[in-house]
Parts: sequence; C-alpha cells; structure tokens
Amino acid sequence: MADADGKRPVVLILGGGFGGLGAARKLKHADADVVLVDDHDFHTFQPMLYQLATDVIETSAVAHPLRDLFHDQPNARIHQATATAIDLERRRVEFEQMDAIDYDYLVIGLGAQVNYFGVEGADEHAFPMYTLNDAVRLKEHVLRRWEAADRDPSLIDDGALRVVVVGGGPTGVESIGALSELYRSVFSKDYPGVPMDQAQLTIVEAGPTLFSMFDSKLQDYTHETLGNWGVEILLGEVVESVARTRVKLKSGTELRAHTLVWGAGLQAHPLADEIGVELVRGRRIPVRPDLRIADHPEVFAVGDIAAITDAKSGEVLPQLGSVALQAGEHAGENIAALLAGKATEPFEYRDKGTMATIGPGAAVIQFPRGRTMKGKAAFLAWGAVHLALLSTGEDRTKAMLDWTWAGFTHDREGRILVDDDAD
Amino acid sequence: MADADGKRPVVLILGGGFGGLGAARKLKHADADVVLVDDHDFHTFQPMLYQLATDVIETSAVAHPLRDLFHDQPNARIHQATATAIDLERRRVEFEQMDAIDYDYLVIGLGAQVNYFGVEGADEHAFPMYTLNDAVRLKEHVLRRWEAADRDPSLIDDGALRVVVVGGGPTGVESIGALSELYRSVFSKDYPGVPMDQAQLTIVEAGPTLFSMFDSKLQDYTHETLGNWGVEILLGEVVESVARTRVKLKSGTELRAHTLVWGAGLQAHPLADEIGVELVRGRRIPVRPDLRIADHPEVFAVGDIAAITDAKSGEVLPQLGSVALQAGEHAGENIAALLAGKATEPFEYRDKGTMATIGPGAAVIQFPRGRTMKGKAAFLAWGAVHLALLSTGEDRTKAMLDWTWAGFTHDREGRILVDDDAD
Repeated sequence: MADADGKRPVVLILGGGFGGLGAARKLKHADADVVLVDDHDFHTFQPMLYQLATDVIETSAVAHPLRDLFHDQPNARIHQATATAIDLERRRVEFEQMDAIDYDYLVIGLGAQVNYFGVEGADEHAFPMYTLNDAVRLKEHVLRRWEAADRDPSLIDDGALRVVVVGGGPTGVESIGALSELYRSVFSKDYPGVPMDQAQLTIVEAGPTLFSMFDSKLQDYTHETLGNWGVEILLGEVVESVARTRVKLKSGTELRAHTLVWGAGLQAHPLADEIGVELVRGRRIPVRPDLRIADHPEVFAVGDIAAITDAKSGEVLPQLGSVALQAGEHAGENIAALLAGKATEPFEYRDKGTMATIGPGAAVIQFPRGRTMKGKAAFLAWGAVHLALLSTGEDRTKAMLDWTWAGFTHDREGRILVDDDAD
Repeated sequence: MADADGKRPVVLILGGGFGGLGAARKLKHADADVVLVDDHDFHTFQPMLYQLATDVIETSAVAHPLRDLFHDQPNARIHQATATAIDLERRRVEFEQMDAIDYDYLVIGLGAQVNYFGVEGADEHAFPMYTLNDAVRLKEHVLRRWEAADRDPSLIDDGALRVVVVGGGPTGVESIGALSELYRSVFSKDYPGVPMDQAQLTIVEAGPTLFSMFDSKLQDYTHETLGNWGVEILLGEVVESVARTRVKLKSGTELRAHTLVWGAGLQAHPLADEIGVELVRGRRIPVRPDLRIADHPEVFAVGDIAAITDAKSGEVLPQLGSVALQAGEHAGENIAALLAGKATEPFEYRDKGTMATIGPGAAVIQFPRGRTMKGKAAFLAWGAVHLALLSTGEDRTKAMLDWTWAGFTHDREGRILVDDDAD
C-alpha cells in the first residue's frame, strides 16, 4: 500500500518489551516499514528478572538482542535510542540520540517505572525490580554486603545481611522466595563463618495477606512455605522511610537492614503525560476496545503503559507480561487490518491462569474459573509456561537447563561481582 | 603441626588466579590455615577472556566464584579484599577493607597489569584485555559504537566501526580474530544497512611478524588466514599516541578508529616494588629454583608477577596460564613439604605446547620439539585443552556448549548492553 510518492507507510513502535515485540511480529507480512525503537538493544524477559537477581539464571537467559529477533523480518528496522517527545499532531517522535521519525501508525509500548509513592529515601536507597539493570544492581549489592560482613562481622548486627522486601505481590514474594533459597542453599556454604540466623529476610505488605490476587488456599500455602523457610512476614505494615542501613515502618518499628527491595508499585513511563488524554490509576493511558487512544485512530498503546479494558469482562486488565504480549499482537493485527483497508477488532484477553513461584518446588497457580494448583506440580507447570514464552529456541534451552539445574540441585552459577564499586 | 600455643600455621595466598588457586589446592591436606585473598570474589579463566569480549561465551564460563571452589576444603578461608602493603619483616600483609593478616608462609600471586610503555593517551582511551572487567568494557564499547553508527551513519567515515588492536602476540591475534568473526557473522546480519567494507579491523605489530614465538609456518598461516578475512596487518609499526577517535603511528600515519585494544604488554602488580629484591624485565619478582624469594624462605612468588626460571632449561618462562598453574601447585607442594619438616624441590615446567586460536576452525599449536599443528585440527585440540583446564565440571560443560555452538553455527548470545552509559 504505497502512497502517491511511492513511499510505504511507517509503523513506529516505541518499546521492545512484550507489547512492542508482539506488535512488530504481527506486521511481518504487512506492506509497511516497521521501525522499533528501544532504550536498550535487547528485549528483557521480565518474569524471570528475580531469578537473575538471585543467580539462578544468567543475563542471556532473560535478555535477548532485539536485532536477532528480526533477522527474518526484512520490513523491520531496529534502533537503540530514547524517545523524548511524542507530537501526536505532526505524527512525529523525537529522540535523544537521533533524528525525529515521522510515522503513519504509532504503537506506544514504553512500559512503566517504579513508583515509590513519595517514601522518604526510597529514591536513593531502595532497589527496584523492573529492569535488567535493577536485577544486576541488586545481585551485586547483596554479594557486596556479604563480602563486607565476611571481612567485618560487626556489620552483621548492623543489618548487613538483612533484606527487607516491600510488597506482597508477585514481584515481592518471588524476590523474597528466591533470596531465601540463595541464603539457605548457597550463602550458608559459601560463608561457613557467618551465623545464618542473623541473616534475616523480611517481607512487608500493607494489606492483610501476601498474594492478595490469589485464592485464600494459595495465600495460606505461601505464608506457610515462607514461614517454614524462616522468612519474617510483616502484614498491615507500611514503610515510612528508608536510609542506607535502616528501614522505618509507619508503626514505629525500625529494622536494621542494608538492603530494601521495592516490589510495591509501578507508574507509567513519563511520556504518558504527553498523550493529551486523562490518565487513569498508575498514570496509565486509557485505550479504546481496539487499543487505540481517543481522537488518534493511528495511535495504539499496549503493555504496562496502557490501561486496557477487556472487551469481554469489561474489567481493566492487570500489568502482566501475558497481557502485554497479547495486546501487542492484537495492536499489530489491527494495524495490518487498517493497512489492508479493513476494520479493527476489539481486544479480548485469553486468561490462561496466573502463576507465581515462591521457590524451588513451591509455586502457586490460579486458573480462570477458580481452580488452583500449588507445590511441586505448580512449580513444574510454571517452568514449562515461562520457558514456552521465551523468545528463541536457544534461549529456551539454556534457561531450562539453568533453571532445572538450580531447582533440583541447589547450585548457582555466575555468582560473581564484575564491577566492584564500593557501596 | 601446631606451635606452642596450639595455633596452626597460617599460609596466606595473595591472588585467586591460576597461581593462587594451584597453591591453595595443593594445601588441602596440610595442617595449616590457608587464607586466600583476592580483589574479586571470583577466579578468572583468562585464556578465554577475548571470547567473552566478543560474545562467544558468557561471564560465568570465564569467571567462577572462589568460595565455590573451596566448599570441599575446610582448612581454607576466602576473603575479597585488596592488599595494600606487604611487610616481609613482620610477616604481615595489610588490606584496604579489612584488618592485617599475619602469616607463617606467604604466596604472592597478584598477577600483572597492562603496560602502555608511556604511549600518550593510552591510559585514557585504550582498552586493555587482562581482566574480566576489561573484556566486558570492550564488548559494551564496540556494541555502543555500532548502535551509534546505526543512528548516525556519518560516524562510520569517522572510524566508529574500526578497531585497531596493538600487539601481535596471542592477546592481540586472538582478539582481532574473534572481532573479525563477530563482524562477519553477526554484525553483518544485525546491521543490514551498514556497508561492511567500511568496518575495518587493523592489527599493529612493531616486529616483522605476528606470533613471533611460533614457527614460521604458523606465522604464514596466521597472516594468510587474517588476510583472507579482510583484516589489515601493519607490521613494523608502532603506536605513538591515542585519542578518542584517532590512532597515530610513529610512521606518521593517522588511523580513524574509535576503538584501540591494547594487547602489547604487561608489567607486574605494583606490590612487586615492595618485596625489596631487584626486579627483572616487566618489573617481575625473580624467584629461586624452588619459587621462594631471596632472603625470605617463607615467601613464594608465582604466576605473572614472578620471573620464574625453569630448573631444567635455565630459561625464564613466559607469562602463561599453564606456567602459573604449575608453579602455583609447586609452591603449594613445597609449603606442604616444609610444614611436614621436609625439603623443597626445584620447579620444572612441563611444556605441553603453546596454542592460540585465530577464529572458528583456525588455530595454531607449537609443540615442544618443533612440531606444529594448524587449522581445524588445532582448533579442536585448542578447545579440548582449554576446557580441560576449566575449574569445575559444570563450567566445562557450559563453556563447551557455548563454544561449540559458536564455532560451528556462527551464532552469538549475550550480545547486549546492560549498562548504557554514554561513551
């Protein structure tokens, strides 16, 4: 569908996450130039980030070069650059490191960033868990605290080995579970001189339960499992402030902890503010049933930056990788339809269940119609589903090998500090 | 062999490279406290560093957590700390991050650092290839230059994609060979818009040939192979100065290149200056036939920091991983002998041949008595020997899988930029 001067329409996709990738792939056979731009030159498989942070798997298992994914798609171009402004009227996006790009269709899949809800000191001292760099930073920080405590045991009493995780959702629970496994199976052997009972792990949740989105049976199982592992669970508690070695709760309690992991909330990418529509909870861009934004039928928003309402249930969908991937693919199909002169279709999410893992041999799954699964069977199912989601065959094999190895033999690899900046 | 107050003798080992590891392992059954201290918490498998820099293998294949290697050695303790002073009279070593340690026996295996021989700008702009961090920095820099050229093609003419490697020894040749493979097999697909003939790779050597330590047949093969791959070989040329985007040769030629890799020389770790003996070429510590230093029968030096004379041939041995490993093991055995009231033995190097690889399917081997091997057979032998040297079974398997995959299918993994600082 070339226009009068012979140029093909340009579909610009901002973001190479699940949403952006899904959209780009569904445009493989479209008669258009597909341009995908991301801050990074890789796609991050976010559901396994916490495993990278705790050394179960390696960087290449959660990050895949974007260019690699498009060797077989000649109509796609990839650029690594940061979008700085979206001009909906002129249909143009500006970038920090390169010239602006004019588009005919735009897919906004820029994702989210951590939301500290104004907690004092969090910006400076908390460790978020959203990007690959976050996971690497957390891993290196925890390792450095253990090395420091090994050199100077008086730091243990000061909280050097204590980690406080904020948030009882999947990010928080998966992180504390993986840390617990790392502490019990690896550090107890690596640091024989350290008394493990002084290496406390604590999870703080404002509500009355962990995993509030799951069935109460799964919540009980989660509390019991983490409790058996010695994890301290503080419910109905809210973090008031964070310092380098202390965490203060609203209840007045002060925890000695050199590490605070923030798994408590997201807000949309700041460019959401420029779309000119009223943003909804989490500063997300509300979209129409076909994933287009109001007044701009050539602009789609997908993934964590969008508030997507399910066409069937009428409910706003959660910020999950599976939602982002399906919405991205749907946006790509709708653009392909428009390019072919056809109408768009509303988006319906196919819920295959929500899973989370607490540790090796311990996971929970909530299926659509109330059914649940927990324990070892759920753990194996979790592994199979996540591996199936990974982008390429090679990655899938590597991740499976690493993951199975860690799950069944309690070993770790890659447990090293590349960059030894003090902290 | 406890002394009068019941304390066991302390063997302090500085450095967790091939030398330090070899010494520590041979002391597994000694009645002594073995304390190994390294700047890092991991051992680096240096012979494969250039493969990490060019994404053939992953970090965990060349770096192994030191603590992991000593789970089965209860008399060993590991600390991550930087030695700042060696007091030979008081038998004490001071550290930046922890209290000083008093020793009964000391093994100095601190290695070397890059030697720029005073070349102007090298300290600021050159990329050395000695540590894990060096390899990661080079990889990220080269990837960033390609992404920058993708955004702004005018940078190509300025030399953004050109890499100059200095030094025709194994470090230089292996690096340029691996870069050539990366350029030809991966970047040509990842960046379809970039004219590959403008991505020149150049190796600069002051002498009349690459691989001067090898037989002339192997030199010819190396020149021919690199030439066939389009690598520019500049012999009898010396680098005069380096700027961010330019390399100036003594002959007056100026090369437009945004990357200069320094593989041209090493000098011993600066603590060698404190030993109080006259240092030899490369500021190395000369050792006696049994690897002890003059006037201090309780102090051994091994690896790249030491100038070791072979007891049989009377020649100073080259700075190779195999020499360091054998010397470290020998020092450990000699200390075990002293602890048991026996005499030390002189060190004899068992030369099994020297190998280097130019690229997939192309390697050279020089055997002790003049025999040589080259091409695919040498490449396979090189792989087998290096894998056998790796520390643990798991690493060996992983490295072999990664390496074989890359060697035979021309694919790469881990080709991503974690840290996107501008450069």
